[in-house]
Amino acid sequence: MKKNLGPVNALYPTPVTLIGTEVNGRINYINIAHVGIIDFNTLSLSMVKTRYSIRGIKENMTLSINLPSEDMVIKADFVGIVSGADYDKSNIFESFYGELKSAPMIKDAPICMECKVVNIIDMPKHDVFFVQPINTYCNEEVLTNDTIDFSKVKPILFDRPQGKYWQLGKPFANCWSIGKEYKND
Amino acid sequence: MKKNLGPVNALYPTPVTLIGTEVNGRINYINIAHVGIIDFNTLSLSMVKTRYSIRGIKENMTLSINLPSEDMVIKADFVGIVSGADYDKSNIFESFYGELKSAPMIKDAPICMECKVVNIIDMPKHDVFFVQPINTYCNEEVLTNDTIDFSKVKPILFDRPQGKYWQLGKPFANCWSIGKEYKND
Repeated sequence: MKKNLGPVNALYPTPVTLIGTEVNGRINYINIAHVGIIDFNTLSLSMVKTRYSIRGIKENMTLSINLPSEDMVIKADFVGIVSGADYDKSNIFESFYGELKSAPMIKDAPICMECKVVNIIDMPKHDVFFVQPINTYCNEEVLTNDTIDFSKVKPILFDRPQGKYWQLGKPFANCWSIGKEYKND
Repeated sequence: MKKNLGPVNALYPTPVTLIGTEVNGRINYINIAHVGIIDFNTLSLSMVKTRYSIRGIKENMTLSINLPSEDMVIKADFVGIVSGADYDKSNIFESFYGELKSAPMIKDAPICMECKVVNIIDMPKHDVFFVQPINTYCNEEVLTNDTIDFSKVKPILFDRPQGKYWQLGKPFANCWSIGKEYKND
């Protein structure tokens, strides 16, 4: 039996990201899991319009997307519950830079993308940033044959309905392949 | 040591969805994992412009988002590797309808959202549909206290770099809570 929950967004889990910015010249990070893939090289990040990070993003039109690993969950959640307007978050993580001087990245994060903002979508309560990575830095320990191996990344997955962070499980099938086993009855 | 992979999209894993449409009056489903959350009730779906499903979406401005469970992986992958232009996919799943008469949903999928299309973003090679669910139907077996419980949904997660489908692991922390344990050194 199906139950109608009404107009509920059930599109979870999504990967937790830590977005690096500079706001008034100070490094800031925020936890964003309302993200998306727009095309092969364009990603989306959704932020409530009051977020402090937005000031830096609009000023510099750059940001970084860092994928934290499970063992970073305390800090990853912390930067989501305190605002840069009230708290200096510049020293929570050790930062490094790539080409973009206003897109600080997190040394401990296994995957860091430095990104340019290419579009801003104005929704009623949210600014949605379309961004494109110009460089993606990965810890060598999370690569297998120079490809990102998520079993080594150990990403944090977000579920809003229950308010939980989840681990990634195991790979169990190959894409564009397992479907060939389908036989029409 | 970090290795620069160049401008690589590493924003995975993402949930696999099966998008239900009617194209020329025939039910069709496609596998889309390049999805996103735009705001609380607006979701994004990215499709290469040549996809057959797009004809039906633009004609009806409706679609459904179905979250398959692990045990549906063969059919879920199959509808991603054959086109509705060449193959009648109307009988692969048993379908049902809610309010929208052109948004067929999958009876076996634990979560089904019937959606209206509210915007279409024209990217160079992709059409990106912003959609809003008007009703979300869930199998009662995947609810805990009337809330979606992803440990019961057993969603399929997509990883493009390695071309794998992943299981969801275990919940390991509470959002907006575990971060309170952070102490500045």
